[in-house]
Amino acid sequence: MTVLLSGRWSAAEGERWAQLLREAMPEEQWLLHPPRNAAEAAAVEVAVVANPEPGALSGLPNLRLIQSLWAGVDRLLQDPSLPPGVPLARMVDPAMNEAMVHTALWAVLSLHRRFFELQVQQRQALWQAPPQLRAAECTVLVLGLGELGGRTAQTLAGLGYAVHGWSRRPRELAGVQIWQGEASLAQALAAADIVINLLPLTPQTRGFFSAERLAQMRPGACLVNLARGAHVDEAALGAALDRRHLRHAVLDVFQQEPLPPDHPFWPHPQVTVLPHCAAQTDPRTAVPQVRVNLAALRAGQALAHLVDRGQGY
Amino acid sequence: MTVLLSGRWSAAEGERWAQLLREAMPEEQWLLHPPRNAAEAAAVEVAVVANPEPGALSGLPNLRLIQSLWAGVDRLLQDPSLPPGVPLARMVDPAMNEAMVHTALWAVLSLHRRFFELQVQQRQALWQAPPQLRAAECTVLVLGLGELGGRTAQTLAGLGYAVHGWSRRPRELAGVQIWQGEASLAQALAAADIVINLLPLTPQTRGFFSAERLAQMRPGACLVNLARGAHVDEAALGAALDRRHLRHAVLDVFQQEPLPPDHPFWPHPQVTVLPHCAAQTDPRTAVPQVRVNLAALRAGQALAHLVDRGQGY
Ligand SMILES: NC(=O)c1ccc[n+]([C@@H]2O[C@H](COP(=O)([O-])OP(=O)(O)OC[C@H]3O[C@@H](n4cnc5c(N)ncnc54)[C@H](OP(=O)(O)O)[C@@H]3O)[C@@H](O)[C@H]2O)c1
Ligand SMILES: NC(=O)c1ccc[n+]([C@@H]2O[C@H](COP(=O)([O-])OP(=O)(O)OC[C@H]3O[C@@H](n4cnc5c(N)ncnc54)[C@H](OP(=O)(O)O)[C@@H]3O)[C@@H](O)[C@H]2O)c1
Repeated sequence: MTVLLSGRWSAAEGERWAQLLREAMPEEQWLLHPPRNAAEAAAVEVAVVANPEPGALSGLPNLRLIQSLWAGVDRLLQDPSLPPGVPLARMVDPAMNEAMVHTALWAVLSLHRRFFELQVQQRQALWQAPPQLRAAECTVLVLGLGELGGRTAQTLAGLGYAVHGWSRRPRELAGVQIWQGEASLAQALAAADIVINLLPLTPQTRGFFSAERLAQMRPGACLVNLARGAHVDEAALGAALDRRHLRHAVLDVFQQEPLPPDHPFWPHPQVTVLPHCAAQTDPRTAVPQVRVNLAALRAGQALAHLVDRGQGY
Repeated sequence: MTVLLSGRWSAAEGERWAQLLREAMPEEQWLLHPPRNAAEAAAVEVAVVANPEPGALSGLPNLRLIQSLWAGVDRLLQDPSLPPGVPLARMVDPAMNEAMVHTALWAVLSLHRRFFELQVQQRQALWQAPPQLRAAECTVLVLGLGELGGRTAQTLAGLGYAVHGWSRRPRELAGVQIWQGEASLAQALAAADIVINLLPLTPQTRGFFSAERLAQMRPGACLVNLARGAHVDEAALGAALDRRHLRHAVLDVFQQEPLPPDHPFWPHPQVTVLPHCAAQTDPRTAVPQVRVNLAALRAGQALAHLVDRGQGY
């Protein structure tokens, strides 16, 4: 098959992926975007993509699969020229899943045990132990219970936290109290000491953390956003932190990335800024996932991790 | 029975413990140290202690049990007037065990995923993702595999870390590669990216992290000391950090506590200072442990968590 590779990445990053994919699947014809002529474009059956430039996937008449290398497909779905009807698969990568669980766990431990405050105390040479609460006394709400949220919720429950989870459809997760749908949201938010956002960015979830939603959170609660910057009204979040309605926010994603140098979150004592590194696709484990889906396509078997375009994830 | 309560703590802390112990064991006669006269001293059968002043337990002719409220008994054993032959039990508290696992986990996640460096980057408004290694690519050596070290090692192994453990006697722990005794130590230290100290302070382990031992650690490795300050030659550790042989140290305990205001560790960019708060005894779960041991004493049954005074732990 002819496979087109297209991403918005540095030349070095693009070359690394191209090399690893070619090595793992030497039986395919690998093209780098753009195709040189109409014949090449007509030959393309698969596009392997990492947030390609808008329009990059138009003019491919025989495209049968779009395989994303990234987990989130929100930017891809915003491209109006994305060929309709072509199956779109997203990346589910064991290394990325592990990394996300680790990042979420670190954030929860830091907030629960007041390690951010202790690091401020260190700068003041202040020796003062914070109160020590049990994990069971700390309620963590995980929004989104998919690949990332589901694993995060279960790991936290395994460590003794009181874990609640929220998803669109009913779910069962051992040790996790499930809330489901819009109607339960205000109650779930009000019950949590720490809220972790692992929702996909869809028309339904864009702007999720509005001033109103933030006000529904328990006074003194903390927000951990590991999903997308567009989930959060940043001005409203800044205000909620400033008036101490919220204690702290750990943010990996922002409306504009890289976070602009003059953004008030950089120096904010109640904000921990991470440079969108909560969980990255690891080529070593992601390339085999691509290989599995290409083999399934060739064999006419079911494709893994297809996106429901109507739902946006 | 008559129980003497003696600790080096604030009046408020002492009062809190006295009240909780009295409420949980109203059948006992509770005395606050010191006994008022020889008759009272003669009545004392049990001493419940929290690092009492040296000499506090002498002159109690009918003492049958010393029950510590703290896990470490190194200070207690340094009191030359500690009545010999009287059984000494230390505290094993589920809440403390949990807290120690959490602290160790937070330190490992912070070091493995470079969250300390990311917090420095935040102060510089620097947007730069660190490399993302798998947990299996990060080798963690846990020194001491008792109540705290054993649980810590198993939790880290469950999260995918390559965990090694070191103890005096042979041990088996699922998913943990065990090294045993002095002979294996240099090799174990050289293999680890992160070394967590959870040894008790004994004549054998005092000064454990000498300049020589620190030099045996892998270049770029990190030290997490959650046990006792006297385990570490602080000048040698500072030097190892300064010449970048070691990347970072997370220290909860120090030769002098509180850490003196002018100590070079406070402002050291490669040192994270915690105010001896890695794991505290929680009266809510510790008082029932005392109750169990007092009931065993009364019934002539086996006492739990007795210290081997010869070994010093
Ligand atoms: N910061 C980073 O480094 C990073 C890295 C990777 C991914 N991410 C972000 O993480 C997101 C989640 O990834 P994933 O792999 O876990 O996705 P996923 O497997 O598709 O799971 C999505 C979850 O969100 C729930 N959900 C979706 N829309 C909802 C709505 N309107 N109301 C309530 N629940 C809703 C889904 O509910 P159902 O179970 O009912 O379908 C599902 O549980 C990605 O979309 C991406 O934006 C960030
Ligand atoms: N920072 C804090 O907040 C905090 C809180 C609580 C406790 N602590 C410290 O943590 C220490 C450990 O507590 P624990 O409850 O886990 O103790 P523990 O159950 O007695 O375990 C001690 C472990 O250390 C090993 N060990 C002792 N001497 C050794 C030696 N010379 N060489 C090799 N291994 C040796 C023992 O080996 P074997 O298994 O072979 O006997 C055992 O595995 C306490 O003593 C205390 O100092 C600190």
